[in-house]
Amino acid sequence: MSSSQHVASTPFKAPDSSRLQLNEQGKLRHFLTTESLSKEILTEIMDVAESFSSVGDQAVKKVPVLRGKTIVNLFFENSTRTRTTFELAAKRLSADVLNINVATSAASKGESVLDTIRNLEAMQVDMFVVRHGDSGASHFIAQHVAPHISVINAGDGRHAHPTQAMLDMFTIRRVKKEFDGLKVAIVGDILNSRVARSQIHALNTLGVEEVRVIAPKTLLPLDTNTLGVHVYDNLLEGITDVDVVIMLRLQKERMSGALLPSEHEYFECFGLTQKKLKQAKPDVMVMHPGPINRGVEMDADVADGTHSVILQQVTNGIAVRMAVMTMAMNHQVSDQP
Amino acid sequence: MSSSQHVASTPFKAPDSSRLQLNEQGKLRHFLTTESLSKEILTEIMDVAESFSSVGDQAVKKVPVLRGKTIVNLFFENSTRTRTTFELAAKRLSADVLNINVATSAASKGESVLDTIRNLEAMQVDMFVVRHGDSGASHFIAQHVAPHISVINAGDGRHAHPTQAMLDMFTIRRVKKEFDGLKVAIVGDILNSRVARSQIHALNTLGVEEVRVIAPKTLLPLDTNTLGVHVYDNLLEGITDVDVVIMLRLQKERMSGALLPSEHEYFECFGLTQKKLKQAKPDVMVMHPGPINRGVEMDADVADGTHSVILQQVTNGIAVRMAVMTMAMNHQVSDQP
Amino acid sequence: MSSSQHVASTPFKAPDSSRLQLNEQGKLRHFLTTESLSKEILTEIMDVAESFSSVGDQAVKKVPVLRGKTIVNLFFENSTRTRTTFELAAKRLSADVLNINVATSAASKGESVLDTIRNLEAMQVDMFVVRHGDSGASHFIAQHVAPHISVINAGDGRHAHPTQAMLDMFTIRRVKKEFDGLKVAIVGDILNSRVARSQIHALNTLGVEEVRVIAPKTLLPLDTNTLGVHVYDNLLEGITDVDVVIMLRLQKERMSGALLPSEHEYFECFGLTQKKLKQAKPDVMVMHPGPINRGVEMDADVADGTHSVILQQVTNGIAVRMAVMTMAMNHQVSDQP
Repeated sequence: MSSSQHVASTPFKAPDSSRLQLNEQGKLRHFLTTESLSKEILTEIMDVAESFSSVGDQAVKKVPVLRGKTIVNLFFENSTRTRTTFELAAKRLSADVLNINVATSAASKGESVLDTIRNLEAMQVDMFVVRHGDSGASHFIAQHVAPHISVINAGDGRHAHPTQAMLDMFTIRRVKKEFDGLKVAIVGDILNSRVARSQIHALNTLGVEEVRVIAPKTLLPLDTNTLGVHVYDNLLEGITDVDVVIMLRLQKERMSGALLPSEHEYFECFGLTQKKLKQAKPDVMVMHPGPINRGVEMDADVADGTHSVILQQVTNGIAVRMAVMTMAMNHQVSDQP
Repeated sequence: MSSSQHVASTPFKAPDSSRLQLNEQGKLRHFLTTESLSKEILTEIMDVAESFSSVGDQAVKKVPVLRGKTIVNLFFENSTRTRTTFELAAKRLSADVLNINVATSAASKGESVLDTIRNLEAMQVDMFVVRHGDSGASHFIAQHVAPHISVINAGDGRHAHPTQAMLDMFTIRRVKKEFDGLKVAIVGDILNSRVARSQIHALNTLGVEEVRVIAPKTLLPLDTNTLGVHVYDNLLEGITDVDVVIMLRLQKERMSGALLPSEHEYFECFGLTQKKLKQAKPDVMVMHPGPINRGVEMDADVADGTHSVILQQVTNGIAVRMAVMTMAMNHQVSDQP
Repeated sequence: MSSSQHVASTPFKAPDSSRLQLNEQGKLRHFLTTESLSKEILTEIMDVAESFSSVGDQAVKKVPVLRGKTIVNLFFENSTRTRTTFELAAKRLSADVLNINVATSAASKGESVLDTIRNLEAMQVDMFVVRHGDSGASHFIAQHVAPHISVINAGDGRHAHPTQAMLDMFTIRRVKKEFDGLKVAIVGDILNSRVARSQIHALNTLGVEEVRVIAPKTLLPLDTNTLGVHVYDNLLEGITDVDVVIMLRLQKERMSGALLPSEHEYFECFGLTQKKLKQAKPDVMVMHPGPINRGVEMDADVADGTHSVILQQVTNGIAVRMAVMTMAMNHQVSDQP
């Protein structure tokens, strides 16, 4: 029940995602995936986020950066939590926000999505924040929008959730200062996690020493050998000497069939406890994208304990979303005639 | 299967809609229907819309015209698309917007609607944008609101959808410059279309040469002889030499019973194709209120072709809604003590 | 069927609600219940509301008092009407508003509520307006929020609805000038009414001469002997010589079992008519929190008659909500490091 294998460090690439995300000057113009973005771009996102991180502490929690811009939260999949973070980030930038929930029925198929996009484009909106149940939906939309519109991926199927990954990177950097030499373990349902994919790409690009994924064999993707990770199916072994443990949320609704015996058994094998955590470095950071299933992914005393930076992740998430919105909006403007 | 008849050019009038829509100085104070409004008022709407049409191109897409005003989107019938256009128009005018969806249950009947209105009035809101499944609902509300409140009809039953009609007029004017001498054909479910009624009144008032309606006999209203239109039940004949073709959306959910054999057969007889369009003038404009059922009302290559102004209609819709909101708000203010 | 009893005038107290609502300087910092608040605080709320009461009459209905603050309408129970009043009050204060409807399912239980709160706190919001079906939910949240966050109770179970009570007090004061010497009757489902509880505390604290409750015995709470009220089960007797009649809404959905024979019979015994109202003082005020069930709680001609101040209550409600939001926000600020 324990094994460790070192695999080649070649991140996989979606076709064109580099060309699609950057403008002709090589600046971020859509934010769809951490994949294929350079260390410089990822670092710039964190630097801009740093500059926004004090806005929430001010008496007037607003900056006029995107005043008069219209940002559309275009959610084909319901997520109050994620929508709220983007809405708040947009309002702190003084943008106008439209929340549109597209029923996942007929409207979310092929041509209809394009008609929805064309229609909103014609209303001269500036940005789509897209959440969709299908992998690649944000790419598809970014490929078809007008030059003066940016697309931010707020989660697409099993593919990517890049703002979540970047808020995690930003949180690590704020605590650890450097990525050099860090060992990071990601624990849980790697197979179904768009967050894990985006994290792995970002961590490797930012140059951590080692990325480990820890999961039951049934929850590992088939392409681990191209992801640039070390694979473990034993938690204790996997978190030994790591600097950061990122717990994934068990997406019960995403799991089809009997891949897991029971929540109880999952917790026994892969749930994080204070005791198990002693295997990691003494100053280990514990992260989770929320919402936590206490007693499944981790004990409550780990979630609320001194190693946990879970609430800092949330705070940092606003700053990171402000950053990518601002960067994408700036670099789209120079595309306009 | 083909026939053409010329009918008397007397538009029908709802009782009092002229007195109701204008203030004592003859200025627009509610916008409920294009019926009974003068050519001067309709032209003023388009002139004001023209003045707002560049706002969406500015870096800051806002003007402070309605700052500190409260606009209530009061939707008794769900329509994300229409609600979005009004919300966007209001935000570009710097107004505050409240979206209220009233369940179409008990709450939408008689006295309850009035209680809802009285309640919102007491909160000192400034404008109701009303969508309702019953014809005349906006008139009813306009008859009962306080003098300092304006009502905009965002579609009531089969009766009227005047902002849609005026964005169509504005789009025609921007392309054709003049209404004089234009031949305009409206194609589709005339019987159930509030849009068609509002368009016919506006086109006749603005002085086009000829308005034609083209529909299967089962989808023609009984009062075509008072609408001031030429009636056709053959598409090719009806669009011959026209300057503008306005396709209506086939509102499947509004049709009761077996008025149509099938979507396929409808398309064969009344669907617009590039080939059929050759019957019209070479510079014919093709319009549709959206969303399009491609392959039912028209071929995709017509919808996306060079004659289509469908997306310009959407863009113009924001400016027209900004215009009627501003005009109604200005003329209500002079009513205040 | 008629009886009257004088009961001891000792309002009941929830544990710590005084300490919880006030900061160290004795200033309002959360607004959870009228209970335990001093006459000075209640008077200050009305004074501040008075200063805001002209904002709705201005051409620009906004003051920059809470610009750059984030107010979250956190509704665990749906109420468009109440949510709208808070949203409007917040926007008139220039705050940013997030509307979050939490499904009353799993998410509203124990630890999950706390996780929701912690999460929103981490987004650096400033205020929670909480509506919840369980009594004490707002207290629970106020006990757990960070020092820089205020909680406003927008109705919790059968416990309290303090902004409704204070808008009623404010309305009485604007008409009657003084509370001294007033006789006030509250009529209806006292047992299930959070509004009645909050009103009784406020009226007694503000020093009215007499508070009467009038209800069928089945709709009286068990603790009337500690509430400081006179109890009547006969309407005519109860409203004799009163200055103010406050009708409660019959919350049909809150009543379990056969506590009432029928709406018709209820109206016969406890419904207010013009004729019955002659028992009260000639300048009696008639109040109702809305929405009215005409023909159940009162005749339409009473609701719309000269004694009714029902719509003034709505108008005053915006000013009172602006007042408590501003006071709580000010007094929280001094808590910050």
